[in-house]
Amino acid sequence: MTYDDNNVFAKILRGELPCHKVYETDRILAFMDVMPRGDGHVLVIPKVKARNLLDIAPDDLAELTKAVQVVGKAAKTALAADGLTIQQFNESAGGQVVFHIHFHVLPRFEGVALKPHTGQMENPEVLAELAAKIRAALPAA
Amino acid sequence: MTYDDNNVFAKILRGELPCHKVYETDRILAFMDVMPRGDGHVLVIPKVKARNLLDIAPDDLAELTKAVQVVGKAAKTALAADGLTIQQFNESAGGQVVFHIHFHVLPRFEGVALKPHTGQMENPEVLAELAAKIRAALPAA
Repeated sequence: MTYDDNNVFAKILRGELPCHKVYETDRILAFMDVMPRGDGHVLVIPKVKARNLLDIAPDDLAELTKAVQVVGKAAKTALAADGLTIQQFNESAGGQVVFHIHFHVLPRFEGVALKPHTGQMENPEVLAELAAKIRAALPAA
Repeated sequence: MTYDDNNVFAKILRGELPCHKVYETDRILAFMDVMPRGDGHVLVIPKVKARNLLDIAPDDLAELTKAVQVVGKAAKTALAADGLTIQQFNESAGGQVVFHIHFHVLPRFEGVALKPHTGQMENPEVLAELAAKIRAALPAA
């Protein structure tokens, strides 16, 4: 499978679409999912072009998952979450919708189930506030 | 949270409990989930003691996720799957049941949903056969 330069995350990386940024390095971008399955749902992506786990270079994957850990810890702390669920989907049958590799970081709270994928957009002000909270809990650069 | 040396995966690593081994290096072990949510459901764990994403060393996490990719590609090829779903759970609220960090590698097939966590044990002969198929699809060591 080839990489499609017109996927939504490629547009975010090129600055053609906005995002609520949580974390950025020279190789990584993390931002709020606009259709969150729970409070603090963050997506972590590499800047390199990769469709999913099947084609990403191992070193890029390693860098990506280190960022998942950094962002996950910050999100858990920022929101005083009880746990974290990490998901990563590959190809349509695997649950993938946007074909630029991404990890879902989902802060979890006792007794609160994940919301279904309803396609419901979250209020941008809510996302901006959550992003600011998580950024504030990141380790000093 | 501290690491509990009596968790089930620690016992597998010490050889006190059996497993259907899929892949092993000096730092990694992958084996069949005995209560699979689908055909070819593999667990990938590090040999180092780590409870979950919140305490594993970044370098150990990087090594672990590289192994997830190796095993995931092999499982997809071996079973001619259409996709892969990767899950990783942290703390009870995040879905974690065994407190040694592990990634779930789930081969996915068009139109086939994941089975619920019923606690239903799979037939060991079925698991042995699936493990052999996946091992045969691994890259040469």
